[in-house]
Amino acid sequence: MTCQPEKPAVVLLSGGLDSATTLAIARRDGFACHALSFDYGQRHRFELDAARAVAEALGADDHRIVRIDLSAEGGFGRSALTDAIDVPKDRPELHDDTAIPSTYVPARNTIFLSIALGYAEVLGAFDIYIGVNAVDYSGYPDCRGEFIRSFQQTANLATAAGVEGRGHFTIHAPLIEMTKAQIVGKGLSLGVDYSLTHSCYDPAADGAACGRCDACRLRLAGFAQAGAKDPGRYA
Amino acid sequence: MTCQPEKPAVVLLSGGLDSATTLAIARRDGFACHALSFDYGQRHRFELDAARAVAEALGADDHRIVRIDLSAEGGFGRSALTDAIDVPKDRPELHDDTAIPSTYVPARNTIFLSIALGYAEVLGAFDIYIGVNAVDYSGYPDCRGEFIRSFQQTANLATAAGVEGRGHFTIHAPLIEMTKAQIVGKGLSLGVDYSLTHSCYDPAADGAACGRCDACRLRLAGFAQAGAKDPGRYA
Repeated sequence: MTCQPEKPAVVLLSGGLDSATTLAIARRDGFACHALSFDYGQRHRFELDAARAVAEALGADDHRIVRIDLSAEGGFGRSALTDAIDVPKDRPELHDDTAIPSTYVPARNTIFLSIALGYAEVLGAFDIYIGVNAVDYSGYPDCRGEFIRSFQQTANLATAAGVEGRGHFTIHAPLIEMTKAQIVGKGLSLGVDYSLTHSCYDPAADGAACGRCDACRLRLAGFAQAGAKDPGRYA
Repeated sequence: MTCQPEKPAVVLLSGGLDSATTLAIARRDGFACHALSFDYGQRHRFELDAARAVAEALGADDHRIVRIDLSAEGGFGRSALTDAIDVPKDRPELHDDTAIPSTYVPARNTIFLSIALGYAEVLGAFDIYIGVNAVDYSGYPDCRGEFIRSFQQTANLATAAGVEGRGHFTIHAPLIEMTKAQIVGKGLSLGVDYSLTHSCYDPAADGAACGRCDACRLRLAGFAQAGAKDPGRYA
């Protein structure tokens, strides 16, 4: 039996259900995982606390939080995730793919993947995992396969490692074609403790999920369809 | 005579010679310019001071500095521009295109363009200017036309504005095929005050340029070939 050192990968980790499952998949794929989270002016910090707990529970090699201000105060924003805009609740058309919701943060995944790319190059990693998926798309342009493939091409042109042919960057989006129920099922089979994750866009002061925003409703429906109980804490 | 309001553009502005010239070109092209600089853990702050002065002198509508830690302390780095690595001086092969120098910051232009893209989307702008050029390439993969074209494609797939067809993002790199002498000549013809700009990688404590790093030598040679005197301050 030979023992090979694990190859490094960067895993974008928001602390939500999808990114936790993605980290579990990257670990199953045999990578030494460097989890990367962003403090980008989110309205609440529960997801960063969740990211820390998830990284540790799933055996990430390390976990780094990069601070970058994408709020309105920082000149960005106009998103319900960073600014004082009401998070939509109880939307009749939860799966409406045609409209871009107010929770959209301009170019967010492009920014996060770019920083992950720089971090990967420093680490000597060529694999980046991101937990985007078609259900969560709900109008987010930067959650589509087309975008991911284009970013991968750009990444290989952007970097010394790519240009010098030391390796080829791969952007892994293992959830992209999965339903929420399939994601939950996959995560449970890989031992993800979903009680540690945080999905709600508009939690109570003590961190309890609202159960009514798009993120909560997709999550609850996913657990129900997977025949499992969501261990998350709801208000 | 009709008077149309100027269209907005985002202009990446480092405070150096190239980005100052790029801002002057964007102004000449008729754009209302939103200058964007980054405080990314550079070893010195003279270039941010220069960026402020240049933005004002060239009539930018506003100037924003986004803070993001790309230094070794922040988990990035291993670059002579952000860390305690010697800046190369008096290199015999100034124009060696084959090696990537120690001043390379991993994925820097991808990160900067991504943030500019998010900012542009918030502003309703579809034009982004960046002052990369072939001479400054000197081994930087993210200063090549191939990279810029690929990023532009990604940008149009990444954003609500691009996907909804409200407009098409264009990444303008007007200097990309110019020599340093041509850049200096262009800037002088557009009234750029180069005494406000800062190019040196390793300035003295009072901000005076070293005259020996790659950036200083390219700049001095550019002025000489343009038949002009560099108004910058040298140690």
